[in-house]
Amino acid sequence: FRSSRSWAPPAWGYSCARTPSSLPSLCPSFLSPPLGSVPLQASTFPVFAPSSWFGPARMLSTSTEQEEPVKIERRTLKNGSYATVITLSRPEKLNALDLNMFHAIAKAAEDVARDRDTRVVVLRGAGRAFCSGLDVKSILSNPLKSVESIRTLMQRTEGKLSNLAQDVGFLWRRVPAPVIAVTHGVCLGGGFQIALGADFRFSDKTCNFSIMEGKWGLVPDMSATITLRELVPIDVAKELTMTARIFNADEAKSLGLITKVCDDPFEEALAFCETLSNQSPDAVAAAKQLFNRTYVDTSEEEALRIESELQNVLLKGWNVVSSVAKGVGLPSVVTPGRTKRSDYWHK
Amino acid sequence: FRSSRSWAPPAWGYSCARTPSSLPSLCPSFLSPPLGSVPLQASTFPVFAPSSWFGPARMLSTSTEQEEPVKIERRTLKNGSYATVITLSRPEKLNALDLNMFHAIAKAAEDVARDRDTRVVVLRGAGRAFCSGLDVKSILSNPLKSVESIRTLMQRTEGKLSNLAQDVGFLWRRVPAPVIAVTHGVCLGGGFQIALGADFRFSDKTCNFSIMEGKWGLVPDMSATITLRELVPIDVAKELTMTARIFNADEAKSLGLITKVCDDPFEEALAFCETLSNQSPDAVAAAKQLFNRTYVDTSEEEALRIESELQNVLLKGWNVVSSVAKGVGLPSVVTPGRTKRSDYWHK
Amino acid sequence: FRSSRSWAPPAWGYSCARTPSSLPSLCPSFLSPPLGSVPLQASTFPVFAPSSWFGPARMLSTSTEQEEPVKIERRTLKNGSYATVITLSRPEKLNALDLNMFHAIAKAAEDVARDRDTRVVVLRGAGRAFCSGLDVKSILSNPLKSVESIRTLMQRTEGKLSNLAQDVGFLWRRVPAPVIAVTHGVCLGGGFQIALGADFRFSDKTCNFSIMEGKWGLVPDMSATITLRELVPIDVAKELTMTARIFNADEAKSLGLITKVCDDPFEEALAFCETLSNQSPDAVAAAKQLFNRTYVDTSEEEALRIESELQNVLLKGWNVVSSVAKGVGLPSVVTPGRTKRSDYWHK
Repeated sequence: FRSSRSWAPPAWGYSCARTPSSLPSLCPSFLSPPLGSVPLQASTFPVFAPSSWFGPARMLSTSTEQEEPVKIERRTLKNGSYATVITLSRPEKLNALDLNMFHAIAKAAEDVARDRDTRVVVLRGAGRAFCSGLDVKSILSNPLKSVESIRTLMQRTEGKLSNLAQDVGFLWRRVPAPVIAVTHGVCLGGGFQIALGADFRFSDKTCNFSIMEGKWGLVPDMSATITLRELVPIDVAKELTMTARIFNADEAKSLGLITKVCDDPFEEALAFCETLSNQSPDAVAAAKQLFNRTYVDTSEEEALRIESELQNVLLKGWNVVSSVAKGVGLPSVVTPGRTKRSDYWHK
Repeated sequence: FRSSRSWAPPAWGYSCARTPSSLPSLCPSFLSPPLGSVPLQASTFPVFAPSSWFGPARMLSTSTEQEEPVKIERRTLKNGSYATVITLSRPEKLNALDLNMFHAIAKAAEDVARDRDTRVVVLRGAGRAFCSGLDVKSILSNPLKSVESIRTLMQRTEGKLSNLAQDVGFLWRRVPAPVIAVTHGVCLGGGFQIALGADFRFSDKTCNFSIMEGKWGLVPDMSATITLRELVPIDVAKELTMTARIFNADEAKSLGLITKVCDDPFEEALAFCETLSNQSPDAVAAAKQLFNRTYVDTSEEEALRIESELQNVLLKGWNVVSSVAKGVGLPSVVTPGRTKRSDYWHK
Repeated sequence: FRSSRSWAPPAWGYSCARTPSSLPSLCPSFLSPPLGSVPLQASTFPVFAPSSWFGPARMLSTSTEQEEPVKIERRTLKNGSYATVITLSRPEKLNALDLNMFHAIAKAAEDVARDRDTRVVVLRGAGRAFCSGLDVKSILSNPLKSVESIRTLMQRTEGKLSNLAQDVGFLWRRVPAPVIAVTHGVCLGGGFQIALGADFRFSDKTCNFSIMEGKWGLVPDMSATITLRELVPIDVAKELTMTARIFNADEAKSLGLITKVCDDPFEEALAFCETLSNQSPDAVAAAKQLFNRTYVDTSEEEALRIESELQNVLLKGWNVVSSVAKGVGLPSVVTPGRTKRSDYWHK
């Protein structure tokens, strides 16, 4: 996380759009974002970004139709820490993914990955649905542009693991704070792959899901390859991918694709934010990194080494002291408070 | 998939037996089968092979008792494409696996792997059971032959991943079309490992299963090591393998070993063939390869690279155009038809 | 398993304590324990070790409070073979893990790993609980000693995969006999990681579980990284680790963390010992090693090679002959008896 790029913080929140033209200069690689944390401010929802923040590049390249494809706000939790709520905001299209949306979601993940003040991230959709998937009509509307769009989505930058299509699902794994996807309405194709990239999926009872890509003669290529294998048996992944069929929240839960089905998943997600915010932010970040790095393809030796490595980081931090003091029952008046998550998890 | 071997197609279907003596010359390696597709013809079931097709080698080496240990037929699906039904056919022995059977099953898998016209494969057993496992009495009937038989089963050919014992389970993973095992009666030991090699397992309600090898003081060594880990928690695999106990279809389903339990699994499998045949054969083949290659031991980086690689193959094919046209709702009169699966998936 | 260290067998059972000071000389590495098997004797429970057995080192370094933190007894099974019951025995502290306990548990696992006569291992807790986890108060009671204790737990010996903290969970995987953890009361933090290291977990209905480390601002670093991924989807592992919440036996079972919930898990475990003891000890050891080595990060090629390799070992052993004779129904009078587990599995 080193970069010479500096930026101005938004005054009371921000929304973001990253465009093809501005991408190379704004963020050459996820592995080399700007130094330091993003000084986000608490805000109420919905938020509007001050135009001064985005600079001329964005103003030139963003269509008027999609001024704010992703909205970001902070929620103050009971203990004074913050949750960041990221809302896909193209409700008239059920938050379908056009190129603007891809850039904005990837940018939101990169930004929140740098934010040491965010304890938990909630990812949801505005309007009637979480996300209806790829906006095929928009992407294909202009034959010449289509080729260009697909190239933009699939181009692999040197030194970067994921391309833009994968970024929107994969980059949530690189956010040190846990990410909860809140799904409702529909969660299809690329939208489902975004939700699969989150650490947890809370869904309302009426949400419909699909690994939809087969409908277009394609396979899921927005990081589902990494996320499905951590959740379900291989015959489940194959059946849903090959048929592209719709399935409901109860089936998604029974298959293991959804963490929880509830009446009001956003409220449940906020309650879970409260729970998580009472834990050490370092321990939570370490747990996320620990399992993400070791769950599938790591040898016994390497996995044992990694758990010790991360524990050693925690043992050197202040939050283990404050956690132990609280854990052994010292009165809160003498219990030292928790500090922000260590820089270590943002590297 | 290169070979100088040519062959004559059967007139209306075929059954096959591959014998030890004919194996080396007929198919030196799964990685180098004959060029091109197998021009199978539609047929009704049961089928009988024209004797001229098999040539003298087979005639010499096959006992009269087991003229056709595996039968193969084509079923025409509603949209005119084909499903291939492969039937283990030694019903008087509950389709127990003797050496002839091993060769015939492996050959059937190799043949159908080259067949671009087959959209889905159904694998089932004739008579009262799917397969009762290794025919231990036959294999052990002659002490001298036993050693030879075991050597034949376990011999590893240079450049080939699996030996003959593993072929009968493993080679179904190399078939580009999805494979549905239909189990009934009993599905034991080697028989269960064959079924585990399929992409999906549909079982009737009365079928009994066992990882039976422990009964003989052995471990499953017909590719269950690869397939169990993609389906069940490790304590389940250990318990069933160590005890060799019998379990029924409902337990198999609840453990995740069976995809579906139904009254008539063959009818359900054919219905599933119809569903799959309406998808792009390229997308289906890509989905199968994608998960088979990445589900267990592939790094994040490699898995992300593979999903992009396969998507790029699909994007260059005709079937993505026809799928998108159908998907966006163009009238069928102007929707281009689907083509055969690309040669790419048969390499 | 080579070492020049010799030892005297206990007269009628033994309990063990391994202390920091004696560790380097007694057992420099799990990979180089003494040659040969441990000549354990059958005993009744509870057992007391003859003081002469442990030698002066232990006498000097063990506090009087914790004379026998782990008790070991042999149970004779119906067919005359043995189960070894290992009991965490610090009931006044709910078997909480202090440094003495860590050494004793690791030593018990190392010892039983060398014991060719033990067919099954049962691991349980004395008193009201299986294990309440790390004895944080004891470890932290003396600030100077705390640093030393943590260093002792986390120090990694050259050529050894696991450190002492990991040994107590990980080393059960190196025991050729299957290990059944019997849990009751509470099974928290480090205690749960010990149970996760067993091949099977039988729990009573009232047992409470937790991946408790988050309470101390830590992550599980006693081999849970290796064991959780073989049992549950990643979102389950993350949720339980991040929240450190308590969950009961029914939830543990439904999540896949527990193999079986029953009224009397110790009785069920002993019944399972009887079942396992009727199988070939070589086949059981091979099954355990097969899945432990291949379940997560092994390529198709390597996994297929390993299953053949282990099968070849079995085929050369006597127990496959006796198993086949029994399996094909030879009368017991002419059926050859089973022999001890081969040395191969103890290397």
